[in-house]
Amino acid sequence: MAAGSQQLAVALLSILTGVLSFPLGQETKHTATCGYESCHATKPNMLNVHLVPHTHDDVGWLKTVDQYYYGDRNDIQHAGVQYILDSVVDQLLKNPDRRFIYVETAFFYRWWKQQSSSMQQTVKQLVNEGRLEFVNGGWCMSDEATTHYSAVIDQMTMGLRFLNETFGPCGRPRVAWHIDPFGHAREHASMFAQMGYDGFFFGRLDYQDRARRMIDKEQELLWRASDSLTPPMADLFTGILPNGYNPPQGFCWDQSCDDPPIRDDPDLEDYNVDDVVNRFLNIASAQAAVYKTNHIIMTMGSDFQYENANLWYKNLDKLIHYVNAQQANGIKVNVLYSTPSCYLQELHRANLTWSLKTDDFFPYADDAHDFWTGYFTSRPALKRYERISNSNLQTCNQLEVLGGPVSKIGPFGEGDSQTMKKAMAVAQHHDAVSGTEKQHVANDYARRLANGWQHCQVLVSNSLAALSGSSAQRIYCDNLNISVCPLTESSKKFSVNVYNPLARPVTWPVRLPVSGTAYTVSDAKGEAVDCQVVPVSRATQEVRRNRGFAVNELVFQVQAPPLGYSTYSVSLVKDGLPPTSTKHRAPTVIQNKFLRVTFNPDTGLLSSLSNLETKQSIKLTQNFYWYNASDGNNSQSDQPSGAYIFRPNSSTPFIISQTAKTETIQNSVVQEVRQWFAPWVSQVVRLYADSRVLELEWTVGPLPIDDSLGKEVITRLDTSIKTSEIFYTDSNGREVLQRKKDFRPTWHLRQSEPIAGNYYPINSRAFIKDDVDQLTVVTDRSQGGGSIHNGSLEIMLHRRLLYDDVRGVGEPLNESSNIFPEGLVVRGRLLLSLDRPPTAADAHRPLAQEMVLQPLLTFTDGNLNPNTQLEFSGLQAALPPAVHLLTLTQWDKDSVLLRLEHQFQSWESKVNSQPVTVNLQKLFSTLEVLGVSELNLSANQWKDEMIRFDWKLQTGKKPLLKTFEDPSVWEVTLRPMEIRTFLLRVSLR
Amino acid sequence: MAAGSQQLAVALLSILTGVLSFPLGQETKHTATCGYESCHATKPNMLNVHLVPHTHDDVGWLKTVDQYYYGDRNDIQHAGVQYILDSVVDQLLKNPDRRFIYVETAFFYRWWKQQSSSMQQTVKQLVNEGRLEFVNGGWCMSDEATTHYSAVIDQMTMGLRFLNETFGPCGRPRVAWHIDPFGHAREHASMFAQMGYDGFFFGRLDYQDRARRMIDKEQELLWRASDSLTPPMADLFTGILPNGYNPPQGFCWDQSCDDPPIRDDPDLEDYNVDDVVNRFLNIASAQAAVYKTNHIIMTMGSDFQYENANLWYKNLDKLIHYVNAQQANGIKVNVLYSTPSCYLQELHRANLTWSLKTDDFFPYADDAHDFWTGYFTSRPALKRYERISNSNLQTCNQLEVLGGPVSKIGPFGEGDSQTMKKAMAVAQHHDAVSGTEKQHVANDYARRLANGWQHCQVLVSNSLAALSGSSAQRIYCDNLNISVCPLTESSKKFSVNVYNPLARPVTWPVRLPVSGTAYTVSDAKGEAVDCQVVPVSRATQEVRRNRGFAVNELVFQVQAPPLGYSTYSVSLVKDGLPPTSTKHRAPTVIQNKFLRVTFNPDTGLLSSLSNLETKQSIKLTQNFYWYNASDGNNSQSDQPSGAYIFRPNSSTPFIISQTAKTETIQNSVVQEVRQWFAPWVSQVVRLYADSRVLELEWTVGPLPIDDSLGKEVITRLDTSIKTSEIFYTDSNGREVLQRKKDFRPTWHLRQSEPIAGNYYPINSRAFIKDDVDQLTVVTDRSQGGGSIHNGSLEIMLHRRLLYDDVRGVGEPLNESSNIFPEGLVVRGRLLLSLDRPPTAADAHRPLAQEMVLQPLLTFTDGNLNPNTQLEFSGLQAALPPAVHLLTLTQWDKDSVLLRLEHQFQSWESKVNSQPVTVNLQKLFSTLEVLGVSELNLSANQWKDEMIRFDWKLQTGKKPLLKTFEDPSVWEVTLRPMEIRTFLLRVSLR
Repeated sequence: MAAGSQQLAVALLSILTGVLSFPLGQETKHTATCGYESCHATKPNMLNVHLVPHTHDDVGWLKTVDQYYYGDRNDIQHAGVQYILDSVVDQLLKNPDRRFIYVETAFFYRWWKQQSSSMQQTVKQLVNEGRLEFVNGGWCMSDEATTHYSAVIDQMTMGLRFLNETFGPCGRPRVAWHIDPFGHAREHASMFAQMGYDGFFFGRLDYQDRARRMIDKEQELLWRASDSLTPPMADLFTGILPNGYNPPQGFCWDQSCDDPPIRDDPDLEDYNVDDVVNRFLNIASAQAAVYKTNHIIMTMGSDFQYENANLWYKNLDKLIHYVNAQQANGIKVNVLYSTPSCYLQELHRANLTWSLKTDDFFPYADDAHDFWTGYFTSRPALKRYERISNSNLQTCNQLEVLGGPVSKIGPFGEGDSQTMKKAMAVAQHHDAVSGTEKQHVANDYARRLANGWQHCQVLVSNSLAALSGSSAQRIYCDNLNISVCPLTESSKKFSVNVYNPLARPVTWPVRLPVSGTAYTVSDAKGEAVDCQVVPVSRATQEVRRNRGFAVNELVFQVQAPPLGYSTYSVSLVKDGLPPTSTKHRAPTVIQNKFLRVTFNPDTGLLSSLSNLETKQSIKLTQNFYWYNASDGNNSQSDQPSGAYIFRPNSSTPFIISQTAKTETIQNSVVQEVRQWFAPWVSQVVRLYADSRVLELEWTVGPLPIDDSLGKEVITRLDTSIKTSEIFYTDSNGREVLQRKKDFRPTWHLRQSEPIAGNYYPINSRAFIKDDVDQLTVVTDRSQGGGSIHNGSLEIMLHRRLLYDDVRGVGEPLNESSNIFPEGLVVRGRLLLSLDRPPTAADAHRPLAQEMVLQPLLTFTDGNLNPNTQLEFSGLQAALPPAVHLLTLTQWDKDSVLLRLEHQFQSWESKVNSQPVTVNLQKLFSTLEVLGVSELNLSANQWKDEMIRFDWKLQTGKKPLLKTFEDPSVWEVTLRPMEIRTFLLRVSLR
Repeated sequence: MAAGSQQLAVALLSILTGVLSFPLGQETKHTATCGYESCHATKPNMLNVHLVPHTHDDVGWLKTVDQYYYGDRNDIQHAGVQYILDSVVDQLLKNPDRRFIYVETAFFYRWWKQQSSSMQQTVKQLVNEGRLEFVNGGWCMSDEATTHYSAVIDQMTMGLRFLNETFGPCGRPRVAWHIDPFGHAREHASMFAQMGYDGFFFGRLDYQDRARRMIDKEQELLWRASDSLTPPMADLFTGILPNGYNPPQGFCWDQSCDDPPIRDDPDLEDYNVDDVVNRFLNIASAQAAVYKTNHIIMTMGSDFQYENANLWYKNLDKLIHYVNAQQANGIKVNVLYSTPSCYLQELHRANLTWSLKTDDFFPYADDAHDFWTGYFTSRPALKRYERISNSNLQTCNQLEVLGGPVSKIGPFGEGDSQTMKKAMAVAQHHDAVSGTEKQHVANDYARRLANGWQHCQVLVSNSLAALSGSSAQRIYCDNLNISVCPLTESSKKFSVNVYNPLARPVTWPVRLPVSGTAYTVSDAKGEAVDCQVVPVSRATQEVRRNRGFAVNELVFQVQAPPLGYSTYSVSLVKDGLPPTSTKHRAPTVIQNKFLRVTFNPDTGLLSSLSNLETKQSIKLTQNFYWYNASDGNNSQSDQPSGAYIFRPNSSTPFIISQTAKTETIQNSVVQEVRQWFAPWVSQVVRLYADSRVLELEWTVGPLPIDDSLGKEVITRLDTSIKTSEIFYTDSNGREVLQRKKDFRPTWHLRQSEPIAGNYYPINSRAFIKDDVDQLTVVTDRSQGGGSIHNGSLEIMLHRRLLYDDVRGVGEPLNESSNIFPEGLVVRGRLLLSLDRPPTAADAHRPLAQEMVLQPLLTFTDGNLNPNTQLEFSGLQAALPPAVHLLTLTQWDKDSVLLRLEHQFQSWESKVNSQPVTVNLQKLFSTLEVLGVSELNLSANQWKDEMIRFDWKLQTGKKPLLKTFEDPSVWEVTLRPMEIRTFLLRVSLR
């Protein structure tokens, strides 16, 4: 059986070769000598200076990605990527010694498809000869603080797939390259390691951290990026670039720079060769002093440079010529065109030992009062829209697979997931979901996501029609968060299809805006479901304006099977009961069988939270505050708070209101305490009948600025938990890192910003704990947060600023638009879970996945066709609790990409932090798996061909690679935090 | 004899072919189809839009010429010509339809000599196929208001020679192209016609003139640029470009522009092809409405554009493609890549009649209060330095010929004229001698001239050593104008060599700073020369500061033979007489045998001038005034006075002093009245014993600005001459044009600036006259002037301004430097001649040439070797008074370039305005002329091969070309204002 399966796998591999194309020797006539083989020779007895010509092309920032591509709106910023690629290719052809690296596949793809086939052949030749090398190679260079790992893996996969299919192995980047992101997440390093990168380079880190590392020559190190994966699975060699990603001072020869060119005609004025050579040797020598080997790297490029590559190369050619000519005079410096991988190869050959790092590079400060911790929260509405879009995309991807080919061309027309995939991919860019782009660019990202979702809606409708047997029109209500859905508001009878993209069944509260006062709801089996009608809150009515008129909401719990849907029917009851009335007295307690929540009747604020199952109870008060954003007029520093930077004027936030006006609703489905703090801050504290979590639905905005004060609004949970200045945040939605106040694990911190300097990105959750209690907060988007006081956890919800923070975006983060001239209102949810620390992960891991991949509701008016299949699951059975189905997406006509993930860290659950095995052949209910082959995480290399550089640690302890013993190809075992990626050859049963 | 000579000429032509190289069919394998043959086809039934990709590369302006070449100091202005040429060649190779024109040979030469031979071959191919076309082709695009014709012809010759020798006939520009100069001189048009250009295009003209011409469709016309030369010798077809030299609005695709690129990928945002096509068609249609033919031209480029030519061409390719695609939809517009000559060819083919213009395009105003008449005077010191440098260069050129090969390598080392030729050539640029460059660039032009003169000094010393037989060291005293010459100040015995570059003998007053009080001077024959010692004026002592200490000046008249020298010996007389004393009483009269000059004893000012020979007398007062330069804060306009623009705050100038303090010196050699008006204005009124002209040596500066008022200083001559609002100025030092107050010959002027709008450039002379009296003022440099009042002539001498005039230079014309932090002092001379109008030219023509080509003094300390030849003339005899030897310069090893000029207009002299014949073989005393061949004015084409387009006039009268009947090759006849250019094969006798 095992042998037979392996044979099958080998056969499949050859079948799949066409999918992961390896054009080597097949499309090109010349021998490919790309990658490490194509590096220029270095000189062992000299200082080798690796000049790396590169451009950094933001996939949207001051301009939209398409404006950047074409070079439109150069009045905003001079940048045109089409010309960069035109120019670089031309210049590479002029001198075979020249090298260039390209990074952002979103742009390269746009360019490539406009090229003639002869130009494409030319470029392939350059790639095959290592003259044009791709590094990083994802669709974009993702943000590290505010992205979720699933979307990052998707965007990397899309970019690397394009390179792989276009160029084969020579197009596979060897090096990850995150030169611009503003702080670096450990989970990104872990992913890069699992994607097969040999090394990683970045440009930005805390200025104190850099200073210490320069002294200790630890700017190059080994990053162990997981506490759960067996080394070296998540080990990543990491290099910190000497000068951000810019050239050394005086050596920028781009058209955007003003540095003097090399003037080497002695007949003309200002011959400067001697001066240039001397300045270069001085810089090289200073740089060599803070690195370990006799190799140093210089990044010869910057933002959108090389639009006229001739300027750069002409002068670099001369620089190399004139500096190396000094070797004849005994100067031991050798300058060469190089790439990050060629430089990395030399570091590897140096055979030295390297220091180990196990924490991350957050937060990033480039000066004492310049902490880049504002963007953790900037543009909270965009951050949420990106997150829900990811959920919708995963649903779209799954239904494309489950529905079969009819999904893309079916009764509702042509649909696709590609548009949304691309929209999500660009949204991962480090000036996209980060919220650090200009307003019009933020609008563009949102528009792209909306457009992508339109394409997906057709696909989803087609797929659900195929799966359900009903081609009745499906209505999508994307504004349920503000109680807007024209269908449910007007219909007397409709059905709700609840699709669950998780691999285990979920229960989910549904709230639908309705005009009636009483409804009946029945499930797929026809059984009645408890439902209640409650009045729409005043806050919601204010927020939605004229986009909806429902005065009530129908509330009920639905259940949906794994990777499938269930259908609920809703009917208006004539002359039914009135809706649950609101009580205006201050509440004292809401409670279900799991939780008890008390309120202070004098203030209307929360006062305690108890888990009735575990019999634990904490004091818990919660309120809203705002930091006054610095306007920069400050004796210590002129740094204002802005899109990137959080700098409160004072460490003491202003309280918005000591007390909340409250209303209470209590019925059999839900209990709500509606709190009103100010015209721009309200909240619903909500407890569903069957829920183990307390929901805090906050509504914040428009932030008033008529006092000319920028505001950064937080909510703060103050508890009786003894936190000892420690709290925990996740990294890109996966592993959790410990954070300690005024402390960094790898250097002695001189804290200069008591608030901003203690903020960390929260992607999906944060928690505080002591020996007995752990309070976990699951967020619905990325936010910044900190634990400034004992027992306290604060999360920044919304920001509105009046000054630009001088990091280039050139706009205050004001977020007022035509639609919301008075400023943006943002609504979101925090889910609170109180548990014993040893079992807390068992709750928050699935809870966070439910928040990330939430059910998709679609609506059908009137009665359903009686033949409609009301329930469906794509799985034969729910996956074990530890296993998350991360990816299921059509890869090619006959194959799908599957990622299974162990979603627990090795230490966090007695029950779930165990290896778990899944049988791939027994996975799907409607898909027959004909073959399987495992890939690296980014799906651009067979797993067994992924051989990475190994690096020696200063500790001397070199871990052995644990070899896996899979019982068979079909049975795949997942260890804690492991993600395994498979290409499956499938057919619909 | 005649036949034999012609045979010789033919033989010589083939001998000389190697000189004027015609590489056609010899260096390139492909057939050359350059010039008119290489033009793209047009469509007769459509509007043909000629897109002309071009760059305008100032040979110095905000940066020096070498900074522009290399792209240095991009912080001042982004511009790097080396990259422009790199990029354009690359882009031309990508699409054979593309065209480019290049203009400034100063830059092209710098680039060419750095190219590999394969690149040179590539470029030759492009030139031979007409894809790269040279237009204009001089070393620079000269200024038209402030240049002297002799320097313009030289710089054009140098540029065109390089093109001819490098590319042969395909490198010969067909079109003159002066898109940027700020007004257009008739003499330039005349020169261009004689250089063989088929047409001329420019961009700037008076806004009222343009408006009228647009209505009348007279933006294309025939310019008859001489009233003396037989048409069509000086006829030049002239086109006024539609948009200056810029692309139409919205269609600038250079890296320096922000116009939207063509976004033609329907998969990306903002597809704009339809919008672009519509906008283009609208612009084309509007432009066609104001031109005559179904061809229009669009200049697709601007200052220093095409550094990244891909941006331009990529979008132009698309524009052509998408617009012409509309022809299928019935749109009758045809867009094509073109050049000015291809456009001109279509205008010629149109076979229409064109209006005739006989005046010039001065002054240029681009708005009601924006007259570009300030630069006529801006930087008067640079303007003078340029003029004296031209004189020195002509001397250097002549002595290179006369001295033979030893001139370049001789007893004083290696000398050359080439350095000075190049320096003079760049100084002709329209932001060089014009004075409209930044201060550091003005310094650079001066430095280049000084450096050129250093190289020439070696050559001159070598040559004079050869001619005189004495290798004694020669000292050059370049600061005699401020009485500084260390040798004469300290020596007790020295000799003065006086070289005269004119072709007739001259008498010249010499003034040497000395320490003694009495000297003897003897001429070449040993005869005593009357000499006098006078005290150095206080003004001179102040101006020269610590650079000289002489208290006296030795004054005497010297004579020098044509194209030769004479030597004078000077000895200190011990215990000689004291110098002429100054008298402090106000003078009443100074007088010699030719002139009588009276002064008002109350004011110290001039009161009358009389010509004793003609017995004519006029009232003449003269004083100094300043206009208050507008600072732009004015209700009518915010235009300040600046480097370009003259805008007085009031039409009434401020008088500097009603009276002058005076001193008088009178002796046998010279009579001087020294006038002192203010600490910053003084003058010497000077009459030499043998002179027919009255000299006014003015010293102005530093202009005080502590009152925060910019000042523009004039001197005004007020006479009794009845001028009827008319005065006369020369054009580039040659023909004289009539100017009438508040009047333009070709349109009805609405005068909006009563002073600035009546200013005209004075290059070498201006005069006022009535029926009986003509007062001519010969200037020593280009200046602006006007005749605002009856009988009055004012000349602007110096300007010091506190505001930039917003035309790009970005600096106020303040002229304060490290050397003169308090501002620049300028000294100059006006020569006044009072004559009867019919004979005035007989005086001012030779007088002005003496001012332009003045004797060069060199000094030798001590006794001369007795074998020294003290006198020499390069001519067998002086040329007739009407003939000016314009050029005598070494061309190649065995050949020299000779230009002979008839220096009288046809109407201005009964005696001299007659044809005159010179025998070339009998010209030189030491050179044997072995062969001769006549060339066009710019020496880049055989005269008999110069066949130009003929154009029909609206008047219908087409002049017949007068054919010349030269009696022989050696006997050449010159008609009024004719310049004839010959290549002579010579050997030293």
